[in-house]
Amino acid sequence: MEYIEQLGANAKSAEPEISALGTKEKNGVLSAISAALRTHVTQIIGANKLDIEQARKNGMSEAMIDRLTLTEARISGMADGVDKVISLPDPIGEVIGGSDLPNGLHVVKKRVPIGTIGIIFESRPNVTVDAAALCFKAGNTVILRGGSDAINSNKALVNLMREALKSCGCNENAVQLVEDTSRDVANAMMKLNKYIDLLIPRGGGGLIRAVIENSTIPVIQTGEGNCHVYVDESADIDMAVDIINNAKTQRPSVCNAIENILVHEKAAPELFRKLSEKWQGKVAIRGDEDTAKFVKVEKLADDTDYATEFLDYRIASKVVKSIDEAIAHINRFGTKHSECIVTESLRSAELFQQRVDAAAVYVNASTRFTDGFEFGLGAEIGISTQKLHVRGPMGLEALTTYKYLINGNGQIRS
Amino acid sequence: MEYIEQLGANAKSAEPEISALGTKEKNGVLSAISAALRTHVTQIIGANKLDIEQARKNGMSEAMIDRLTLTEARISGMADGVDKVISLPDPIGEVIGGSDLPNGLHVVKKRVPIGTIGIIFESRPNVTVDAAALCFKAGNTVILRGGSDAINSNKALVNLMREALKSCGCNENAVQLVEDTSRDVANAMMKLNKYIDLLIPRGGGGLIRAVIENSTIPVIQTGEGNCHVYVDESADIDMAVDIINNAKTQRPSVCNAIENILVHEKAAPELFRKLSEKWQGKVAIRGDEDTAKFVKVEKLADDTDYATEFLDYRIASKVVKSIDEAIAHINRFGTKHSECIVTESLRSAELFQQRVDAAAVYVNASTRFTDGFEFGLGAEIGISTQKLHVRGPMGLEALTTYKYLINGNGQIRS
Repeated sequence: MEYIEQLGANAKSAEPEISALGTKEKNGVLSAISAALRTHVTQIIGANKLDIEQARKNGMSEAMIDRLTLTEARISGMADGVDKVISLPDPIGEVIGGSDLPNGLHVVKKRVPIGTIGIIFESRPNVTVDAAALCFKAGNTVILRGGSDAINSNKALVNLMREALKSCGCNENAVQLVEDTSRDVANAMMKLNKYIDLLIPRGGGGLIRAVIENSTIPVIQTGEGNCHVYVDESADIDMAVDIINNAKTQRPSVCNAIENILVHEKAAPELFRKLSEKWQGKVAIRGDEDTAKFVKVEKLADDTDYATEFLDYRIASKVVKSIDEAIAHINRFGTKHSECIVTESLRSAELFQQRVDAAAVYVNASTRFTDGFEFGLGAEIGISTQKLHVRGPMGLEALTTYKYLINGNGQIRS
Repeated sequence: MEYIEQLGANAKSAEPEISALGTKEKNGVLSAISAALRTHVTQIIGANKLDIEQARKNGMSEAMIDRLTLTEARISGMADGVDKVISLPDPIGEVIGGSDLPNGLHVVKKRVPIGTIGIIFESRPNVTVDAAALCFKAGNTVILRGGSDAINSNKALVNLMREALKSCGCNENAVQLVEDTSRDVANAMMKLNKYIDLLIPRGGGGLIRAVIENSTIPVIQTGEGNCHVYVDESADIDMAVDIINNAKTQRPSVCNAIENILVHEKAAPELFRKLSEKWQGKVAIRGDEDTAKFVKVEKLADDTDYATEFLDYRIASKVVKSIDEAIAHINRFGTKHSECIVTESLRSAELFQQRVDAAAVYVNASTRFTDGFEFGLGAEIGISTQKLHVRGPMGLEALTTYKYLINGNGQIRS
């Protein structure tokens, strides 16, 4: 795999220069990228058209083609995204700890870039610029491996970014694209520990699992959200219906949308009656036998349904006898993303937040708020569903590490 | 692999209880463990003798047998270690961030246990109790997989810990030992993502690499230290000799000892003269041709020597023309652990600390200080040489994650 090794070596050799850039220099490059996007709309759309034509020949669904398609408005949105990254505070250089040790050593714990980050994603060309801009702002070099269906769009976008780097006197290998989109190259990339410090997969569950299973490089697991709303015995049912409706239907295709409701048996009659009135069949329900006593179900729910991220107008439902049963169900089937209890009981709220193992645990609010922008991070490279390094919405800090700088005057250890 | 699945399921089901224990309860269990170690010395030594006899039959080296051997003093040291863990502040429950969002949501970012931690280590029974105590204090359940040579010792130690848990009314599955030490079970353990949240290998480079290559669970890479001292053109040569001598010979077998010296050509004549006087042949030197002009070398150094962690009275050496050459060499061969420059130049010090990619970068001090106790963490479960989650010495905080607790009054997203 000489090809991917070379990309790795290029990134690593660009690292010292890129990691040392000041905020002003980095923002200068990002401005040049933003401007290049705005002035090369025709060129980008031309390249994107090649991808779309090929995708049509390959029989890609219209929904997928829509995700692949770049329009003037979408390209402008990309440039706006880069401008937004410019406005974010630079996380690099922040002193996050340190002290003078008894032996006179001065210790400073300082935030630094991670190094080289690999992004593996599907055929969404908007990820290309977004991910590169965030990695670069945090002082990292980035190797982008997008889906083969978007290769022409990605080449056009990455070439513009590399030109912008060059025009600012920076090493263009700060941003590289894996142009050979074969599976072999992707697998080799996932074992390039020598050059890549971190891999972030962005896409569906299949992609993420493939990266976790094949990578020897540290991975941040993102984006799978099999989220629940539990309606407690003491819940305000109208509030529960509003939250369920919002969390399920406001944007069903995203990871912080819910896929399941768990309803305390005492809350079930009123909850299902009001939810049915609200939805009027708009959302298909796969429920257990107790659910089926109150509402029409598409089918009886099995474990597969409880484990599925529908990302659609479909939801799984279960009537539970206690909050403990609800918590156990969530900890068994959840993906540790976002979970919610609707309750008026302080004890239930505390128990749920303490026992449910997830990045974000809500009391009386929609799970849809788990989001870098909503959380005030200013940006989001993904939502981590793992527990190491970063959990929940990932902003620029997630793309940094730290090092200890220690200054002495000849101290030795006795 | 039903066996290891069962241990995983046991740990996961103990998690909610263990993660919710208060500091007082956890310290109570640790006190019971410490007391049990002190009152069962004979029993532990008896079990350890079985391991030693078997090891002798297997032809284990005396150095390795020494690492395996438990004496009354060493068991007392283990108990002291547990007492030390009791005295550490409990990291769990610390509020590390949060705010009220514009929409009225109250967000609290709270430190919580990671969950279930797997420790894979070699035949050092002192690790067994040490690792279990640290994981437990941070509210985690732990699955210990030690080397087969120490299996009887480990069984005795883990049984005592489980008895102590039971005697305090806690779920004994907070601490479990993998008694089947076959490679198949170890490999299955490394893919138990469903139950294990984090794997920490503790041991030599071979063990660590095997875990990184085989595990699909997030791993913290620890302990490999191919560390350097670079003697700058402007160095105080006497200070450089003292630092090199300390970092190499004070305890050669540990990861923060140095394995290489890089010497600016202008500093080389005096440095090598004084270092030879100091060492009188006590340390074997594998050097490049320029080194060989000044000192007797064991052999000319090749890339393998520069990449080797000798952990012995042996060092690799290279004369360099510039600080840039030294930095490039370190970034190529180093393991990102601890690196040192000896210099009187402010510019060299800054450049070195900025450009060298390592957990701890020293100016004018021995690399031997990279240590949880020296850094004031109070304990150490290892020294991370990776960049995610934790870097450098790992204290109790490294065994925690956080979650967002979000409280609202019916907020939905528009």
